[in-house]
Amino acid sequence: MTTNIKAAHNENVVWSDALLTKEERQRLLNAKNTGATLWVTGLSGSGKSTIAAALEKKLLERGVNAYRLDGDNIRFGLNAGLGFSEKDREENLRRIGEVSALFADAGVIAITSFISPYRASRDKAREVHAKRGLPFFEVFAQVPLEVAESRDPKGLYKKARSGALKEFTGVSAPYEEPEKPEVVLPTHQLSVDQSCDKLIAVLKAKGVIKA
Amino acid sequence: MTTNIKAAHNENVVWSDALLTKEERQRLLNAKNTGATLWVTGLSGSGKSTIAAALEKKLLERGVNAYRLDGDNIRFGLNAGLGFSEKDREENLRRIGEVSALFADAGVIAITSFISPYRASRDKAREVHAKRGLPFFEVFAQVPLEVAESRDPKGLYKKARSGALKEFTGVSAPYEEPEKPEVVLPTHQLSVDQSCDKLIAVLKAKGVIKA
Repeated sequence: MTTNIKAAHNENVVWSDALLTKEERQRLLNAKNTGATLWVTGLSGSGKSTIAAALEKKLLERGVNAYRLDGDNIRFGLNAGLGFSEKDREENLRRIGEVSALFADAGVIAITSFISPYRASRDKAREVHAKRGLPFFEVFAQVPLEVAESRDPKGLYKKARSGALKEFTGVSAPYEEPEKPEVVLPTHQLSVDQSCDKLIAVLKAKGVIKA
Repeated sequence: MTTNIKAAHNENVVWSDALLTKEERQRLLNAKNTGATLWVTGLSGSGKSTIAAALEKKLLERGVNAYRLDGDNIRFGLNAGLGFSEKDREENLRRIGEVSALFADAGVIAITSFISPYRASRDKAREVHAKRGLPFFEVFAQVPLEVAESRDPKGLYKKARSGALKEFTGVSAPYEEPEKPEVVLPTHQLSVDQSCDKLIAVLKAKGVIKA
């Protein structure tokens, strides 16, 4: 038996040997952070996307690996084909929870920005992370409905009030506020910079970003 | 109107400003690689997982960011709930194609190892990457069926031959060989190291790994 054949046969041995712990991965990449997920939740117009985008940029500027998962890269890709029924919305968020956990496992700080109005789906995402020992932060972009509605960046509240849009969170469908979010961001009182600074401080305090 | 309120209102402006190109992301992270996907396909027992695991380790040891997507972290997470019908298998691979593209977009070299027996699903994954300008490499772990069957690391061929396992690729279901794979790895003739070296050479030649 030649060495090559032997190597090719010893699949299990080679495979186990090749497994790396998260810590080894971080050390080898000389990473400035561990993986984690920031799950940003809040009403439409609460500033989720704005904060997610600004935070991603600020983290990258520090050499911290971060990646946003949002409507733009999820709805038309991974979750194309899912509609807006309750079942489909749940499945939408379930997949986002799983994918963010993969990113966190890969050493990236995943920043998700979806309304995610139901506690149950957010708790499920949290659970997926907890099971794998991955840090998870529920970030509540908290504004009074009137403020979110006055911003109405996509004109959705207007459509919802006119009845053109059914089951719109905050108007004709519930938003279940987080009970114990890791971070609360009153985005009508904090600037985008202040919100990002608050998040970065939490990530440092929790050891996700190395001091 | 205070500055804070103004900042919170200027969502679109802030958002556009915060967008980063892939190149800026790489520069900020001082990355040794661009994102890409290596889509390893082949029979059960062809050495896909062995090579994927060994390659991931070798890349990380060079400071190159790589992450494996395989049965272990996909089947029981993102794709839990999917069965083995043709439709479910297609959806399984479709999602893996989408998730690997997200990783590639995030600057990671995604290494997928799934049998992926049908050309159509592999081509779909390729297309998803092409649309977003992300490098995609179809890697064919090529061994004669007899070799794969003689390895039978999970005892699946035995079950398939006995009829206990229906529609098993190579035995009772087709494997459509890649027509123009970027890399062919005859894993019965190459050691695991040699296979990895070949892949790394291709990634360097294509500019995915910086020289």
